[in-house]
Amino acid sequence: MENRPDFVQLKEVGPRDGLQNEKKFISTEDKVAWIDMLSNTGVTEIEYSSFVNPKWIPALADAKEVGKRIKRNPSVRYSALVPNMKGLENAIEAGIDRASVFMSASETHNMKNINKTIDQTFPVLKEVIVAAKEEGKKVTGYVSTVFDCPYEGSISPEQVIRVFDRLIEDGVDDISLGDTIGSAVPSQVESLLDEILKRFPKDKIILHFHDTRGMAIANIMTSLNYGITRFDTAIGGLGGCPYAPGAAGNVATNDVLYLLHGLGIKTGIQDKKIQEASIFIQNKLGKKLPSRSLAFMEGSA
Amino acid sequence: MENRPDFVQLKEVGPRDGLQNEKKFISTEDKVAWIDMLSNTGVTEIEYSSFVNPKWIPALADAKEVGKRIKRNPSVRYSALVPNMKGLENAIEAGIDRASVFMSASETHNMKNINKTIDQTFPVLKEVIVAAKEEGKKVTGYVSTVFDCPYEGSISPEQVIRVFDRLIEDGVDDISLGDTIGSAVPSQVESLLDEILKRFPKDKIILHFHDTRGMAIANIMTSLNYGITRFDTAIGGLGGCPYAPGAAGNVATNDVLYLLHGLGIKTGIQDKKIQEASIFIQNKLGKKLPSRSLAFMEGSA
Repeated sequence: MENRPDFVQLKEVGPRDGLQNEKKFISTEDKVAWIDMLSNTGVTEIEYSSFVNPKWIPALADAKEVGKRIKRNPSVRYSALVPNMKGLENAIEAGIDRASVFMSASETHNMKNINKTIDQTFPVLKEVIVAAKEEGKKVTGYVSTVFDCPYEGSISPEQVIRVFDRLIEDGVDDISLGDTIGSAVPSQVESLLDEILKRFPKDKIILHFHDTRGMAIANIMTSLNYGITRFDTAIGGLGGCPYAPGAAGNVATNDVLYLLHGLGIKTGIQDKKIQEASIFIQNKLGKKLPSRSLAFMEGSA
Repeated sequence: MENRPDFVQLKEVGPRDGLQNEKKFISTEDKVAWIDMLSNTGVTEIEYSSFVNPKWIPALADAKEVGKRIKRNPSVRYSALVPNMKGLENAIEAGIDRASVFMSASETHNMKNINKTIDQTFPVLKEVIVAAKEEGKKVTGYVSTVFDCPYEGSISPEQVIRVFDRLIEDGVDDISLGDTIGSAVPSQVESLLDEILKRFPKDKIILHFHDTRGMAIANIMTSLNYGITRFDTAIGGLGGCPYAPGAAGNVATNDVLYLLHGLGIKTGIQDKKIQEASIFIQNKLGKKLPSRSLAFMEGSA
């Protein structure tokens, strides 16, 4: 318990990871209004979109427009997903404070997602990292499938560290470790953190959980016991798996705040404003979001 | 981590705590068929109904009939909720291996629920405990609102211990500590277990969580780290709060099994059979149950 932090930073990934799999296109106007609401919740980082080719993520095809129209709160860092130099160019034009590059710890998942081997991916990302830093932008590296891969099954800490090491060497400022399919249990988190924290400082590590099997809050609690201070979360628990209708998505910002504030850990984020922004996007999507705390607050209101 | 058990016993409370607030009456025939399915999942205890006055819990008005008709698996202990001597008489006639008595750690909640003060409740329960034991039945004491009360707010460990001590003194074999409104976070679980485990053996303590705000799995993980080996769970996460439509209910047996089996902790319970029994009752209720693992398994099937 003595490891638990007294302050935790959340990055709101709802506008990117939350919306990217949604079938319903949220209009640019609604996205902008929503991100502007998020900018006033007290959250200190928002990933507002993805500059991946719109052919692959049509839900976020308006990334540039969104970036140009949102009202920038000077207390918030705005980031976006950037796959390559073309994406970086667009992102910088639209306005970013940080760039997020991404790859997978699993060879098969990386190939399916990026159409390159892991070794072929490194130089592409390095080019982006170097260019982003020349523009004065910080860079976060996302490593996905750090616990389990939908194609390969269990992923070892060694496989994660191989990618982790290389991304640090190539210049990323911090790394987000993703439980992409929401399958991890706390003992897997412990095994990975035991290795990672031997090698890298805690404050460069971000944990990114999905709540697909309902384990995300327990995994965050386990991470807190290791002293982890940064998590990616999505408002309302947006981001369900397109292949499993009804399944939960990213861990809900609402539920994580319930946990953190209940533990006496400060975040700077106002629960009420998160609830309002959740209900806004829930209404736009026209379906109930999976967050338990949100459902309870709505039901008892 | 060294405290974590290698075997955990779950008590399936779906037929009682799960159904008691459901508006839709499940027919006696369907209840019996469902409990018979549960009896063959590998679970070692099932709370099959409540012998409270049917006026208060119409959903379980057929407790006696259910008890008489279910097929008893000799590996399973069958228990039921028993409020008083009349209830015990009916329960024994219907057939029970164990009786569950109940009261609240909160004075106001106890008054609203049982219409007696805490001090007035003790002798009523003692009479049941003594009589049940004369019949050779073990007795579990449920203490509800051990963390927070919907009327009084925060409940101190001292308030819980006062009730806990007395129930032990009056002869219960074990005690189930209930997060009745599903509001606790792991630090509250730690504070209570720090006190409780100074005074009573681990294997007499059962934890009973509701997932109303999505904290139940993290609270179970925390309890496991304290060496707790017994939990109450309800299939599919049955048991939502009648005052908060859409809110989650008891922690889902399915999700707890995902956690435990993922941690390498044995339970004797077969996931596939739990899934089948979940889908059976989900179809009878005509609505999706809140378990994350169930939704994922169904969606990806």
